[in-house]
Amino acid sequence: MGHTEERDSAPMSYASLIEVMGRVNDFLNASSVLSWDARTMMPKGGAETRSKQLATLTVAARNLLCSDEAKRALEGAEAEISGRAPDSPEARIAAQVREAIDYHERIPTELLHRKTELGTAAHAVWAEAREKADFAIFSDALTTMVDINREMAQAIGFEDHPYDALMYRFEPGVTKRDLDTLFARLRDGMLPLVRGIAEAEEPRADFLYRDVPAEAQLAFGEAMAARVGYDLDRGRLDTTVHPFEVSFTRNDVRITTRVSRTYMPMALFGALHEAGHALYEQGVDPAYTRTPLATDLVSLYAVGGVSFGAHESQSRLWENHVGRSRSFWLNHMDEIRAAFPGVLDDVGPEEFYRAVNRSRPSFIRVEADELTYDFHIMVRCEIEARLVDGSLDVADLPEAWNALIKEYLGIDVPDDAQGVLQDVHWSSGQIGTFCNYTIGNIMAAQLFDTATRETPSVQAALDAGDYTPLRDWMTDKVARHGRRFTRDELLEKATGRKLDPDPYIAHLTRKYSEIYALG
Amino acid sequence: MGHTEERDSAPMSYASLIEVMGRVNDFLNASSVLSWDARTMMPKGGAETRSKQLATLTVAARNLLCSDEAKRALEGAEAEISGRAPDSPEARIAAQVREAIDYHERIPTELLHRKTELGTAAHAVWAEAREKADFAIFSDALTTMVDINREMAQAIGFEDHPYDALMYRFEPGVTKRDLDTLFARLRDGMLPLVRGIAEAEEPRADFLYRDVPAEAQLAFGEAMAARVGYDLDRGRLDTTVHPFEVSFTRNDVRITTRVSRTYMPMALFGALHEAGHALYEQGVDPAYTRTPLATDLVSLYAVGGVSFGAHESQSRLWENHVGRSRSFWLNHMDEIRAAFPGVLDDVGPEEFYRAVNRSRPSFIRVEADELTYDFHIMVRCEIEARLVDGSLDVADLPEAWNALIKEYLGIDVPDDAQGVLQDVHWSSGQIGTFCNYTIGNIMAAQLFDTATRETPSVQAALDAGDYTPLRDWMTDKVARHGRRFTRDELLEKATGRKLDPDPYIAHLTRKYSEIYALG
Repeated sequence: MGHTEERDSAPMSYASLIEVMGRVNDFLNASSVLSWDARTMMPKGGAETRSKQLATLTVAARNLLCSDEAKRALEGAEAEISGRAPDSPEARIAAQVREAIDYHERIPTELLHRKTELGTAAHAVWAEAREKADFAIFSDALTTMVDINREMAQAIGFEDHPYDALMYRFEPGVTKRDLDTLFARLRDGMLPLVRGIAEAEEPRADFLYRDVPAEAQLAFGEAMAARVGYDLDRGRLDTTVHPFEVSFTRNDVRITTRVSRTYMPMALFGALHEAGHALYEQGVDPAYTRTPLATDLVSLYAVGGVSFGAHESQSRLWENHVGRSRSFWLNHMDEIRAAFPGVLDDVGPEEFYRAVNRSRPSFIRVEADELTYDFHIMVRCEIEARLVDGSLDVADLPEAWNALIKEYLGIDVPDDAQGVLQDVHWSSGQIGTFCNYTIGNIMAAQLFDTATRETPSVQAALDAGDYTPLRDWMTDKVARHGRRFTRDELLEKATGRKLDPDPYIAHLTRKYSEIYALG
Repeated sequence: MGHTEERDSAPMSYASLIEVMGRVNDFLNASSVLSWDARTMMPKGGAETRSKQLATLTVAARNLLCSDEAKRALEGAEAEISGRAPDSPEARIAAQVREAIDYHERIPTELLHRKTELGTAAHAVWAEAREKADFAIFSDALTTMVDINREMAQAIGFEDHPYDALMYRFEPGVTKRDLDTLFARLRDGMLPLVRGIAEAEEPRADFLYRDVPAEAQLAFGEAMAARVGYDLDRGRLDTTVHPFEVSFTRNDVRITTRVSRTYMPMALFGALHEAGHALYEQGVDPAYTRTPLATDLVSLYAVGGVSFGAHESQSRLWENHVGRSRSFWLNHMDEIRAAFPGVLDDVGPEEFYRAVNRSRPSFIRVEADELTYDFHIMVRCEIEARLVDGSLDVADLPEAWNALIKEYLGIDVPDDAQGVLQDVHWSSGQIGTFCNYTIGNIMAAQLFDTATRETPSVQAALDAGDYTPLRDWMTDKVARHGRRFTRDELLEKATGRKLDPDPYIAHLTRKYSEIYALG
């Protein structure tokens, strides 16, 4: 084993590490541009060759990260910065590069290839199964995919449970044991609310289903995204099938939403949700641009957010704690009336606030409301963990799914398309990412609670329709640090404690008890 | 000098060459997606980091092309296919890879870096100079850029003239001597027309300046692009400042145009022009996808067209020989009237045909008409060759420019912004590409002449508004071959002779003598 001359003479320094990682970031950002384009602009003919281009970019990023060139630069960097504080940006960068190289080298290339190849085939099989609402069609492919994920978990390594290894790339540090504890507390706090609401009177909401032209919905969504601080000089809003946010460095952070002519909240809250994600990326310290502090070298995504859950905390915060708050509609009801002429003349802010906060059990996760959403996550996480540890057979999956939905939400799943087949994730081999959503919900409430309690002027500004103080607080405590601190370090610095579900349970209890006049 | 283990064990075969070149193509196509996005969609904040991403992708493509891995695969491929016919796709692929590696290895990395760095700085200087219409501001930067290009020419190598070395990457094989001969024949044939038109009566054209809503112009442009055969399932039309076509394999070929509310032909003919480019890429043999026969490994663009001039032949053919023909407007006048309600009620097809074919000397190349356009090219090519061989000093450039414009077009350049500063090319160090436009014009006429003379049904179909036979002829003779044959091989197969300006001169003489009733 040797090196090319160029590599042997490559500088071993912190600067050279930053240069190499800049190119890793470029590959991953290029990949993100191609993904954005595929989901917003690409004509249908482009799909096949686009997937090859994406694969080449991801492999190039991974190979460069694990190259002799990168390793030599890392050695030089480690020697050069050995005196720095352990949580200095430089020390953290070196540590994260080493950790990421170690992570990727544990996973055999052959296993990765097998996963990618199966993913392509399995996606088509899953789509057919969902189309026909017949889980049996997908069963064999899913069995193989679960086996590959079990192999992945063994390769990555874990202390307690193989599921921990799979969650690592999405939510570093979280364990099945953590989730069990969190979920139990959420169920204790939230199930009484779900049960209470089932008996209570529904608020009026007929006006949410009135027809509003797509252009007006998009314009209002964009205006509200800009109002909370989304910088359109470094972003843009487009429409897509499944809304998402994606960044190509903090200088270009794009959001998407979807429009329904029969349910007007979709475009608006979609835009606010993705704007929340975007505020995270737009707020990362400019000095971190193209460095590992704005690159997830484990997941191979060019993002500044420290975990998928932390990212979700910002989208949920701006969507739910701000956009679905009473004060938001007291401040903006006149604007939505003006934006949708003649549509909401008979609706007041209080009515609108209650309507967009209705809760009722439903089958589809992506359409679930703030209160019932986490139960959809619990079902998935519990099932994934059992598939991965072998205590649940794929064949028994629909039955287990339907039983959990019945237990938590009290409803009977009518068919597999509205049950176990609804999400795309498993078809591409993604197991271990659902926990991010609930961790995001918990973290959003924890941050919002601290921001508004400790700094009363933040809440006063929100009451006046001024989002700058809250945004500045979040930028200061969360966004600007990029990936420098872990999620729990970030939470401890911002709120004085690690992830804590109490503020979330308190928020839901306060809000839903009041809207539904629960005892 | 050694190799990594992976490289030493890399397969040496034709299949491995195709695999490596597939990844080169992926990098270059990804780069094209990022360029398209930058020119159509990107918010202004994204510019700085986007240019870094583009640089990383181009360097990655060049490094992979020139890597030990590629060279070993090439050796294996050459051995494996040594019995194939010299013009078989396999033999041509191997030859083109070897030629491209040789080309890139002749240019020192240090020189490339210097050119790239100066390009960034020089562009800003040029923009300021043009803004202030003051050549002196740009003079020093241009002097350095000319010097760098002279170094490039020496590194690349040439037989007769350093300009030949610079034109190679855009129009392989063309020489300054060829251009001198071509230009002399064009001047002989075309200057009498320009002089005659200066004395003749202008056709009526007031209606071209009427206001038409942007949406209607774009919809009509897209409809006409689709009519001549542009496949929107493998493409899309967007607006931009300087229209272009770009492909990300034949499966995704995008076009752009620009809209003027005070000059309606702009959007339409822009769309037809770019659709012509797009038909070339959409027509490349699917078997060539991701291979060097759809990748320009010298210029490092992922295109199937065999030279920039050959590409331009297809855009000019569909724009000028089809879109500006009398039969086109006899067939589509009713449609444009319906598309722009109330705007063209007083205009007949004959009037419209004459109006969109007016000719008059002007200062700006990109706004020039079919007849005077090539004189703008001659001015640039003659000046570039003299800068490169040292017979013209940068300081004397404006004077030389203005004198040539006066000689050819009989007009006095009012300032440098409308003269020597108008084009962006030199600011980025691009010298040697202007000849493509005139070669494209000549080649378009030569191909169109053969197609319509040898296959009378092609002309009959055009007269009936049916573009399929002409498109099929062009696909069969030009597009499907991708980069398998050289431009002259392609022309000889299609028309029985190499590049020949006679059909072009005959076309212009016929058209303009008739429109302007010239003796």
